[in-house]
Amino acid sequence: MRPLGFTGGTLDRADAVRTDPARLTEARRDLRARALAMDGIDFIPGDAGGLRWEAAALTDSDRLMLLGVDDAGIPHFVAEALPGQRIDARSRTVMRALPLLSQEEAALYAAARSLVDWHARHRHCAICGAPTMQFRGGWGRKCSGCGADHFPRVDPVVIMLAECDGHALVARQPGFPPRFFSALAGFIEPGESLEEAVARELWEEAGVRAHGVTYIASQPWPFPSSLMIGCLARVDDPALTLDTTELEAAQWVTRTEVAAALDGDPDAPFMAPPSLAIARHLLERWVSA
Amino acid sequence: MRPLGFTGGTLDRADAVRTDPARLTEARRDLRARALAMDGIDFIPGDAGGLRWEAAALTDSDRLMLLGVDDAGIPHFVAEALPGQRIDARSRTVMRALPLLSQEEAALYAAARSLVDWHARHRHCAICGAPTMQFRGGWGRKCSGCGADHFPRVDPVVIMLAECDGHALVARQPGFPPRFFSALAGFIEPGESLEEAVARELWEEAGVRAHGVTYIASQPWPFPSSLMIGCLARVDDPALTLDTTELEAAQWVTRTEVAAALDGDPDAPFMAPPSLAIARHLLERWVSA
Repeated sequence: MRPLGFTGGTLDRADAVRTDPARLTEARRDLRARALAMDGIDFIPGDAGGLRWEAAALTDSDRLMLLGVDDAGIPHFVAEALPGQRIDARSRTVMRALPLLSQEEAALYAAARSLVDWHARHRHCAICGAPTMQFRGGWGRKCSGCGADHFPRVDPVVIMLAECDGHALVARQPGFPPRFFSALAGFIEPGESLEEAVARELWEEAGVRAHGVTYIASQPWPFPSSLMIGCLARVDDPALTLDTTELEAAQWVTRTEVAAALDGDPDAPFMAPPSLAIARHLLERWVSA
Repeated sequence: MRPLGFTGGTLDRADAVRTDPARLTEARRDLRARALAMDGIDFIPGDAGGLRWEAAALTDSDRLMLLGVDDAGIPHFVAEALPGQRIDARSRTVMRALPLLSQEEAALYAAARSLVDWHARHRHCAICGAPTMQFRGGWGRKCSGCGADHFPRVDPVVIMLAECDGHALVARQPGFPPRFFSALAGFIEPGESLEEAVARELWEEAGVRAHGVTYIASQPWPFPSSLMIGCLARVDDPALTLDTTELEAAQWVTRTEVAAALDGDPDAPFMAPPSLAIARHLLERWVSA
């Protein structure tokens, strides 16, 4: 099975460089150092597709955030957005350009996008409101008022297929494209395990009681910075009670129906998620189980 | 195997009540409603041990945050800390009192502690610096300036045992009690899967290359609001290169040695983590595998 979307990055994140001011300055001054060409939080494709890189020396070095170092020791950076620069965290226009990227490039871009977005939305300290400044090579911000350290946020999300008697549960949200159905998903809350979050979400959104949660795979999802944790769960009573503020429709589908959807069969009962999404991986795993 | 520490909460988190202002007001006015007695982010034990509950009516209703609703329909709240109240997120004094709680109570307290701590550290908007106010029954804050919504943060952490040729890797940080060794752990960063985070942390902290990561279990850890994701990983070359800023020592131990440590044998090569911690669960699972 192919690797999950946005996984497979090959740079060494080089935490030892981030946290050592002397080594960080050296990396920023390295004449070989590259900076990722970005338009806000979207990448600018290269002439032959793929990512476009510029000489890091062209950018104010204080804005350079260290994505990592490659096998040849070349530092790779992305620049923090300028204060006035417009960042639309909800923009999905980059989705259309993602097929231009290799697996490794998509992973690298995911980290860059999440990082640039996080900095743009954390220019102030949530504790005291004073301005913050990046430190640790872009992997944190320090408050100029109270001195608090803040670190990039990753939001864990459970995404799951419920199974009942040879059927899997797929659902659609109001804004989805026509016929599109996917796995149910929701943010993990403080004070719960991922297994508990799976059961809670299935109860809240679909009105089914789940047990026997098993972990399948995970994937970073840079819209803006989620960690998607893919699971299966067993359900004994398939009767659905939908939370219609979250879901427009849901259906139990067979392996044959899922296989047809994955094949892009127009007669399938739904259109399956794209290959970049862990939801498709869950459906593929379930069909082949 | 017993449930993991801080899991097993029995309240319905009642998202439909949180997000419906009329139902939330009704819950806050419910004469049966209870509020958890807290001293900052620590719980105040009841006279017979366990959690202490007070009538929710005694607290300013705007500060009441909905933990959930029990089987009898009784709403359970915890109050947001007052603006001047001192919150020490790093305090571990409550650890000594945790054995007074049942499994369910510890889970409920974990959610309450993480929530109270998050609100106390998010009185300002990270985007614009203006004051924020809680909404959704305490499961979010809204900015009074730019109107942005902010939601409680959960920080996913990987915690793992590396295995090599019948040995598991345990390590100690500088501040640990004497002889105490545990699993390695680290925060998952933007742009990586949990499997990639496991491999990165083992490389950064111990200098070993890992593969074949398998998920074992997860646990909320309210210090202040982590999601611990427990894994095993295979290592082929056991030669260690420690990051001495993170780790003071590390050792490869056999199943016999881990079993002795779990039994509290003073001749074991290390002292094992307490039963509340997922690190102990990982060691127990590894010994019995």
